[in-house]
Amino acid sequence: MHKDIENLIENLGSTFSSNYGHDFLQSWDKSDSDIKATLLATKILRQMHKHGISAKAFASGTAISIFKDQSTRTRYSFDSATNFLGLNPIELDLGKSQVAHGETTKETVNMVSFLTRTIGIRDDIYLGIGHNYISEVAQFVQQGFDEGVLHNRPAVINLQSDRDHPTQSMADLAHLEEHFGGLENLRGKKIAMTWAYSPSYGKPLSVPQGIIGLMTRFGANVTLAHPQNFDLIPDIVETSKNNAQQSGGTFHMTNSMEEAFKDADIVYPKSWASYSIMEKRTELLNSGDKNAYENLEKEALAENASHKDWECTEKMMSLTNNALYMHCLPADITGVSCKEGEVESSVFDRYRKELYQEASYKPFVIAAMILLGQSKDPAKTLHKLLQCNSALLS
Amino acid sequence: MHKDIENLIENLGSTFSSNYGHDFLQSWDKSDSDIKATLLATKILRQMHKHGISAKAFASGTAISIFKDQSTRTRYSFDSATNFLGLNPIELDLGKSQVAHGETTKETVNMVSFLTRTIGIRDDIYLGIGHNYISEVAQFVQQGFDEGVLHNRPAVINLQSDRDHPTQSMADLAHLEEHFGGLENLRGKKIAMTWAYSPSYGKPLSVPQGIIGLMTRFGANVTLAHPQNFDLIPDIVETSKNNAQQSGGTFHMTNSMEEAFKDADIVYPKSWASYSIMEKRTELLNSGDKNAYENLEKEALAENASHKDWECTEKMMSLTNNALYMHCLPADITGVSCKEGEVESSVFDRYRKELYQEASYKPFVIAAMILLGQSKDPAKTLHKLLQCNSALLS
Amino acid sequence: MHKDIENLIENLGSTFSSNYGHDFLQSWDKSDSDIKATLLATKILRQMHKHGISAKAFASGTAISIFKDQSTRTRYSFDSATNFLGLNPIELDLGKSQVAHGETTKETVNMVSFLTRTIGIRDDIYLGIGHNYISEVAQFVQQGFDEGVLHNRPAVINLQSDRDHPTQSMADLAHLEEHFGGLENLRGKKIAMTWAYSPSYGKPLSVPQGIIGLMTRFGANVTLAHPQNFDLIPDIVETSKNNAQQSGGTFHMTNSMEEAFKDADIVYPKSWASYSIMEKRTELLNSGDKNAYENLEKEALAENASHKDWECTEKMMSLTNNALYMHCLPADITGVSCKEGEVESSVFDRYRKELYQEASYKPFVIAAMILLGQSKDPAKTLHKLLQCNSALLS
Repeated sequence: MHKDIENLIENLGSTFSSNYGHDFLQSWDKSDSDIKATLLATKILRQMHKHGISAKAFASGTAISIFKDQSTRTRYSFDSATNFLGLNPIELDLGKSQVAHGETTKETVNMVSFLTRTIGIRDDIYLGIGHNYISEVAQFVQQGFDEGVLHNRPAVINLQSDRDHPTQSMADLAHLEEHFGGLENLRGKKIAMTWAYSPSYGKPLSVPQGIIGLMTRFGANVTLAHPQNFDLIPDIVETSKNNAQQSGGTFHMTNSMEEAFKDADIVYPKSWASYSIMEKRTELLNSGDKNAYENLEKEALAENASHKDWECTEKMMSLTNNALYMHCLPADITGVSCKEGEVESSVFDRYRKELYQEASYKPFVIAAMILLGQSKDPAKTLHKLLQCNSALLS
Repeated sequence: MHKDIENLIENLGSTFSSNYGHDFLQSWDKSDSDIKATLLATKILRQMHKHGISAKAFASGTAISIFKDQSTRTRYSFDSATNFLGLNPIELDLGKSQVAHGETTKETVNMVSFLTRTIGIRDDIYLGIGHNYISEVAQFVQQGFDEGVLHNRPAVINLQSDRDHPTQSMADLAHLEEHFGGLENLRGKKIAMTWAYSPSYGKPLSVPQGIIGLMTRFGANVTLAHPQNFDLIPDIVETSKNNAQQSGGTFHMTNSMEEAFKDADIVYPKSWASYSIMEKRTELLNSGDKNAYENLEKEALAENASHKDWECTEKMMSLTNNALYMHCLPADITGVSCKEGEVESSVFDRYRKELYQEASYKPFVIAAMILLGQSKDPAKTLHKLLQCNSALLS
Repeated sequence: MHKDIENLIENLGSTFSSNYGHDFLQSWDKSDSDIKATLLATKILRQMHKHGISAKAFASGTAISIFKDQSTRTRYSFDSATNFLGLNPIELDLGKSQVAHGETTKETVNMVSFLTRTIGIRDDIYLGIGHNYISEVAQFVQQGFDEGVLHNRPAVINLQSDRDHPTQSMADLAHLEEHFGGLENLRGKKIAMTWAYSPSYGKPLSVPQGIIGLMTRFGANVTLAHPQNFDLIPDIVETSKNNAQQSGGTFHMTNSMEEAFKDADIVYPKSWASYSIMEKRTELLNSGDKNAYENLEKEALAENASHKDWECTEKMMSLTNNALYMHCLPADITGVSCKEGEVESSVFDRYRKELYQEASYKPFVIAAMILLGQSKDPAKTLHKLLQCNSALLS
């Protein structure tokens, strides 16, 4: 029974994973083998859920979430994923202030980790702030564990920083693997990660950065397209170039949406903020200068509004090789959620079911990241769970 | 051991239930047999709790609650009930706006249902809004399940809409069954559902509607009493008339509290808003006209204040056949929680213990609704739970 | 396997505990034997956690917390502790008003206790209010249980009142036991509980009261030091004197920090509010007189500011017998969290790891209090948990 799941677990057992004892902060910190193990665990946990098999590897334990930016969906994903593993999710409000406090953070993080197995953090608003804060938290729990203050070393999970959004990009990758029947089939495919217009300017850069940083690792031809001034963080662009070179793919940048869409197999059109605006926003963070803030907003809106032609229309889609349309949701749909947006409603509607399925991987990606971070031998843990399956619900 | 619980489970096994795969939105959508199965499951789960037997039919899974109106008690009931079944309760704040958003609601509901087994919703403030929203949510999870986006189809539970409050009316029914030693003993009993004065005008119509819609199904003689203009939704009144006719009871309406209390076996005196005020409130929902709102409030308060004589006093109680006093709680008690209210304090005090017991059924009603909605063979599930009972607490 | 834990459980089995069916509101309500049983259970549960052994004595059940004052750390401690025992923590917002409502409180408390095993309450701001409220809640659940409304009688846990902070003092005691290798080694030790300056005047008196009320029971020489007007509640000081006499220790009061620190083995320097200010604050609670409140604050700040010399500096520490520095955290550290505070940063830094460990006992203290309050035979319960340990995480 459940022979297919058994096989996947065997595969996982023979995939070298160095995730144990570590966090998941940026996909590019992880080896190819670590990425593959995470994808495999995602698939296994999703199958177990589908067949009503308990994945409660933990008898008890707390899962802390910290959101420095609003969230309903990611909060749900984290809460449902940690409950699925047997943990109890608790959201902590550690204040909305974005500046890390050193000693204060160290103390608080240890105080809420005595029975904690994972800490999920979203801190994505300020360039140069979020990732540093999340990294500090990871350091502090490591120190607490090394000093014997903590019995376990919680796995810190990046639920979206200013740099990466790995639970999103890994869910997207899982979706692509399923859609194209295997990661190896991404080789030679053209993936267009493009900017798109949205009236709610100012969205983080983490999704496009996460996509180019991850999708360049499997031999695909990745094109990044955006208007001038909407650049991404330079070192992540460099990483993507190197990834493409090493994987036998290509990485290309352009300021033309048409060029990116031309013959694409996959398109990911999405709004993000202008890089210089994001930089200024961080500078203004501590100044408290209200006028400067309002001026910055006006400037940003004007720049943004000049690119309304960056929309994923039926006409744009016709340039592609019958491409798969992707989005992290929610999308700004023209005529539905806003007057002029990222995507034409007929395009969105045609891919709605696919988009929901893309999103459905996220809780299992989060669960996989936690399990691999906390379990020395995840294949053995999953095997035991499968063995002692005794569902009571008839 | 636990022979009594075994017997109840056997009864449940032989009661035809079509609740599986369905929601619990209005009691009048359910067959008599479905209602009986729900009552039986309520009783079984309550007995299991009393004897410290685990009812964790689910190894894991999320229970979403959405409150578009404040609540401490119902929130507790839902959270404790879902935990009792093995689920993890999470409250989602989907905005207080009462207008359903179609596409946006569809997407959000699916995004928070990937590992969800039940969604409990309270949306009771605006006539013509709440029930529609809850029904839409039910449709959207059905669609998500049919499309293969959701592994399970969550049971949607009405925690109070503008039309019905079935977790309340079913708890009341369970209380009556216990009090009178069986549902068959309600036949021929006079039940007075009457309006009563409260300074906090504007309460939903769902409790009286729920009571007349349910209590007319068991051969009782139900009288609905209220001042002019405090009518209930016409089609629910019609349903109650039909119920009474089919069950061999009667349904009677009057504008006299005395007439309703005369020889009653059960009295349920409770404040609710004037129907016309409720209609106008919905009309004003989207207008944003502050003046109109304030005028409406003044009008409502004046109308309300002219009926202070509608109070459940000792004198009123003496008209009855030593009636059982019921209330959904909290009651507005004269001289305790307000100057002039629904009930005289000596009446309330005499029934306090009974009222608490009436309320105690609610978590088990909610658990029963979820279990029957999610379990194909609830008798088998409960039997297995009883068998593998291995309480660790000594 | 786990022979050490087995031995501790045997010890617990032979320690007479009358905690079952009772609450934990003040340490001085408890016999020496009850205190020892609680300490033992704390140690056992902590060891079980360290070795990954499940402590889920409860299959399900709700753990209610009520915070009438803000808290991140204690909320985490309560939530993680109750999850560790198998309960589901829910925070209820019962309003911030500090005045108990009698009938209303009775009803609400019963309504949220049908499936509840414990209620943890923090109500520490107003002298003469918090403890009374918590005691009332305890009375009401007792009554509900006696009347048959509640299947179980939840254990009420004081998470900090105006009088005591037993989860803190018991965690401190567990830390001292560990540090000095046994409670018997506290005999003859000098413990200095002293006031210290902090810019955030107005902190509750419960920590120093809890410390002198508990630490005087083990033959230690306890000195309480504070500036004039910073007295503690008189009857608790009396209790501490009596405790010292009975335990063969001493209890001494002084207005000199130096005198307290001289040759001390343990120092606990911490800010608290002036007693007369606290009394006036309660008087103003219901007056709503804004001016009076502002004047009170000015008065308090001025009085407070005249004692900046009460700081735990290196120089002060050099007076001691190489004392252990203790604090309930967070401390006001000079130059770190404030300009002038309770402790010099080099002193704090030297004891940081010890302070974190002191804090780490709190979740296990809370779990022990609940377990002993709910389990008739806690040794048997813990033994069974140890026996059926079948951790799935590899």
